Amino acid sequence: MRDFSQDHRWLSINTATVRKSCGVEQPLTDIIEACARRGIKAISPWRDQVAAAGLPAISKLVKTHGLELSGYCRGGMFPVVDAAGAKAAYEDNRRAVDEACELNAACLVLVVGALPGALSGQAAHKDIALARSQVSDGIAALLEYAKSSGMPLAIEPLHPMYAADRACINTLEQALDVCDALDPTKSGALGVAVDVYHVWWDPKLQQQIERAGKERLLAFHVCDWLTPTTDLLNDRGMMGDGVIDLPKIRGWVENQGFAGYSEVEIFSTGNWWQRDTAEVLDTCIARHSSAV
Amino acid sequence: MRDFSQDHRWLSINTATVRKSCGVEQPLTDIIEACARRGIKAISPWRDQVAAAGLPAISKLVKTHGLELSGYCRGGMFPVVDAAGAKAAYEDNRRAVDEACELNAACLVLVVGALPGALSGQAAHKDIALARSQVSDGIAALLEYAKSSGMPLAIEPLHPMYAADRACINTLEQALDVCDALDPTKSGALGVAVDVYHVWWDPKLQQQIERAGKERLLAFHVCDWLTPTTDLLNDRGMMGDGVIDLPKIRGWVENQGFAGYSEVEIFSTGNWWQRDTAEVLDTCIARHSSAV
Repeated sequence: MRDFSQDHRWLSINTATVRKSCGVEQPLTDIIEACARRGIKAISPWRDQVAAAGLPAISKLVKTHGLELSGYCRGGMFPVVDAAGAKAAYEDNRRAVDEACELNAACLVLVVGALPGALSGQAAHKDIALARSQVSDGIAALLEYAKSSGMPLAIEPLHPMYAADRACINTLEQALDVCDALDPTKSGALGVAVDVYHVWWDPKLQQQIERAGKERLLAFHVCDWLTPTTDLLNDRGMMGDGVIDLPKIRGWVENQGFAGYSEVEIFSTGNWWQRDTAEVLDTCIARHSSAV
Repeated sequence: MRDFSQDHRWLSINTATVRKSCGVEQPLTDIIEACARRGIKAISPWRDQVAAAGLPAISKLVKTHGLELSGYCRGGMFPVVDAAGAKAAYEDNRRAVDEACELNAACLVLVVGALPGALSGQAAHKDIALARSQVSDGIAALLEYAKSSGMPLAIEPLHPMYAADRACINTLEQALDVCDALDPTKSGALGVAVDVYHVWWDPKLQQQIERAGKERLLAFHVCDWLTPTTDLLNDRGMMGDGVIDLPKIRGWVENQGFAGYSEVEIFSTGNWWQRDTAEVLDTCIARHSSAV
């Protein structure tokens, strides 16, 4: 297992972590500059943040600072109600692949979607098996394009509390079943993003990380699970403030040969998004060394 | 699959569903009377509600009305930090078995516990594997006593969002692994309580219900998953108001030969606990017929 205590060579910042400073939305350019000033080597930006700043400007800024992208957030949202929706989702996902390529991301992270309409409070149906089938079909179609572009796709299993509205792939085992079905040769084109927040509870986590192996482990995300957790989406904890045994899980991942970035992704309306960017980044650096 | 559309012969009310009427705690005796007036055949009361009214009084009232108990809530909370805690937990669980026997409950439901202290915001450690090991040991010890008392124990896998603080058994597969280890002959002394709220998302749900079989399926609980869900604990929906395909899951359970009650268990600070008992019970009866 790598020694993180001496420096933050392997720290990546998911830019959602500092997208709000004291509650105010921050331009991605400012976030990138703040990361670069601290010697942070990698980020993982969100598409809407990139779009707001302009892809060419972000691409140039990333290159100027020699930043890597540990991932690009995000593609997915495959289940839809009709053919027009499917076409729009497919085209949008192709654009996400193109953007990830332009930014030289390590992978495009897929939040696969769930029951259509549920995210806005009106699920079109209750057939989660159908949604899962559409997810597999959607990934299969996108995979062809992503392969031709050389952009790996990382399925992110989301915590079961998001099964209705955000992602109906909810365990690492389930994500790997999809990977094995669509990419049986472990070509490197399809794998998983392991976010401890989503999977820490899983009694089969170690077993499934071993099953994944180096070829499928495309990204590793950290934060912490707070007790109590006051909001289903935006109450993630800073590493060390919760109950997840981060070094143990990182050990399992690195035992498989994973040697990429440890990406901090914290959504926190009430706490970290109320602080300023500098404080949050400095805390991420400190906790990367002491708690991950 | 049984026809629920004509009557509510198989409806049971978990008394937490109506423990508050217009926000005010209700005596269990009043709840029982209100159920009996509506021809409801079964309830599942909580220990604290029984204790407040007195076990002899509740036992007598249940007999007077010829009510059955689809379960008794609850034993468990096995993980502790020291020998004194273990002894206290064991003795408390024995008392729970005794009370369940006095009330002639179909089973004692086990919410197994998780990281000690996490429920009050201060987890004693982060070793969920240790907690799981203590849970198995705790159930094994209690099982001997429960067998001698003739009271079946029903492990309730809780949703993974409760893995830190309420129960570290989080899937039906995991619960059945414990059952198979401790009761390999499927004696009827150990099984599971399937609450749709906790397991609906599981891609292996149908497979694991089939694995459970009639011998392990000791209880079936219903409510619904709302989108959005605004609170991790107390924002459960009334059957039909959310995204769970209740008839499909009930069909899987009944295909295994389950012929017990469909127990309504709704924790709802902001909605159902703000209404009066009569309205909530009448709605349960209506939805039992139309949505379950």
